[in-house]
Amino acid sequence: MNIILLEADEIDDCQVRLDGRRADHIIDVLRARPGDLIKIGIINGKVGHGTIKELRRSRPRSVTATVVLEGEPPSAPLIDVLLALPRPIMLKRILTQLAALGIGRLYLLNAHRVEKSFWDASVLDEQNRRQLLLQGLEQAVDTMLPLVTVHRGFRPFIEDELPQLIRRYKQLVVAHPGDAPGPLDCYRPEPGLTLVAVGPEGGWNDYEVGSLVQSGFSPVSLGPRILRVETAVIALHALFNQLCQREVALVAGGPPPL
Amino acid sequence: MNIILLEADEIDDCQVRLDGRRADHIIDVLRARPGDLIKIGIINGKVGHGTIKELRRSRPRSVTATVVLEGEPPSAPLIDVLLALPRPIMLKRILTQLAALGIGRLYLLNAHRVEKSFWDASVLDEQNRRQLLLQGLEQAVDTMLPLVTVHRGFRPFIEDELPQLIRRYKQLVVAHPGDAPGPLDCYRPEPGLTLVAVGPEGGWNDYEVGSLVQSGFSPVSLGPRILRVETAVIALHALFNQLCQREVALVAGGPPPL
Repeated sequence: MNIILLEADEIDDCQVRLDGRRADHIIDVLRARPGDLIKIGIINGKVGHGTIKELRRSRPRSVTATVVLEGEPPSAPLIDVLLALPRPIMLKRILTQLAALGIGRLYLLNAHRVEKSFWDASVLDEQNRRQLLLQGLEQAVDTMLPLVTVHRGFRPFIEDELPQLIRRYKQLVVAHPGDAPGPLDCYRPEPGLTLVAVGPEGGWNDYEVGSLVQSGFSPVSLGPRILRVETAVIALHALFNQLCQREVALVAGGPPPL
Repeated sequence: MNIILLEADEIDDCQVRLDGRRADHIIDVLRARPGDLIKIGIINGKVGHGTIKELRRSRPRSVTATVVLEGEPPSAPLIDVLLALPRPIMLKRILTQLAALGIGRLYLLNAHRVEKSFWDASVLDEQNRRQLLLQGLEQAVDTMLPLVTVHRGFRPFIEDELPQLIRRYKQLVVAHPGDAPGPLDCYRPEPGLTLVAVGPEGGWNDYEVGSLVQSGFSPVSLGPRILRVETAVIALHALFNQLCQREVALVAGGPPPL
């Protein structure tokens, strides 16, 4: 927890009173004392700091602080992810890690090789998803919650929703192990957002890959090794994010191209 | 498990008898029947296939197959990792994921912010480490076990061991959040191995970063977001691995530079 995140309505007259895991963190990990400054952010809002006023170390624990918000959150992420719904334990880790890496939107999609039982997982409940995303933001010192949408029909998503959505993106790529070009070779060097699609364990079936390619996705490969979904998502995010961030820096007058 | 891995001495006269989780996988996941082919590899050796001869579905389960080994494992990884010992639950996931992504060597090192209790973790036992690495190889369809070495003193490692070790590498980088250049900007475009160093939660201290830089490591940053060790390791591996693999392809007459 590298920033304490608050709901806007938790602040009353520049004061906030924290309990639960946020109070535990301030008392046990930060070992804060009255007068200390801690980093604070408003969910989907500004960042700033809090000055500790009171700590109650015995249960029920609480911490009171005055809050000053003066900074903007990090610039908006350049990567969105389209993900075939993974098994619940993997989805938990992916939600936290993608929020930490920085994404704008996550589309969770059905696919032939998604097990039906995955749709009953409690991690899909909006409050649970939100808690996992917040953990990622607390790690990365960000305040902007990614938007997560759930699409239980592959074909309706591709035919009815995707045509509108893809206008947001300069580039759409779909992970496809094998002979497809690598990220460094298929990256489109122009400013804008990239949407990275990753299939289920066992991969998209031929119809699904065909539909995605027909919708404008380019196949991209990380090489011959078969990776777990979680590993592939992080690897692809890292690659396209660095490429996109570099494009932004170049436009702003950064270092010369490779 | 995308390949069934065997010890060389499990094969007797081109036959192997499997039980435990490998038999379970062949029976329950692959749903193999007599006559079916399954992908097989020898740990630190060749890959090939097995032809199922007999399956015993009732406990104690077993599978008998005849084995033909005709192929070489994937080409040797171009990335090694120097890692401050992470907390045990994270080390478990890192071992499996690094073996899947492909590394030659993993050096586990002490650092000021490594908690002493981490050194007592059972995951550090050689047999446990080996099992986790094998899971990564089984995922990635590789047979070559990474070499893992454990270094409980930071200073002895830096002063006595590192000077010999670094001759293996064309480039040494140390992850350092903040203003350091990104992987795309600091990558040295020449064939050879890269060693990526990642610190503990909370980071290397100033003395440790100074020692690494003085030993020849260049600081590299993934940007202002603070990532968990596990996420940073995968992201940095993905970036330097793609850059190194691309270099190999270029030397072999691949696509033109970016």
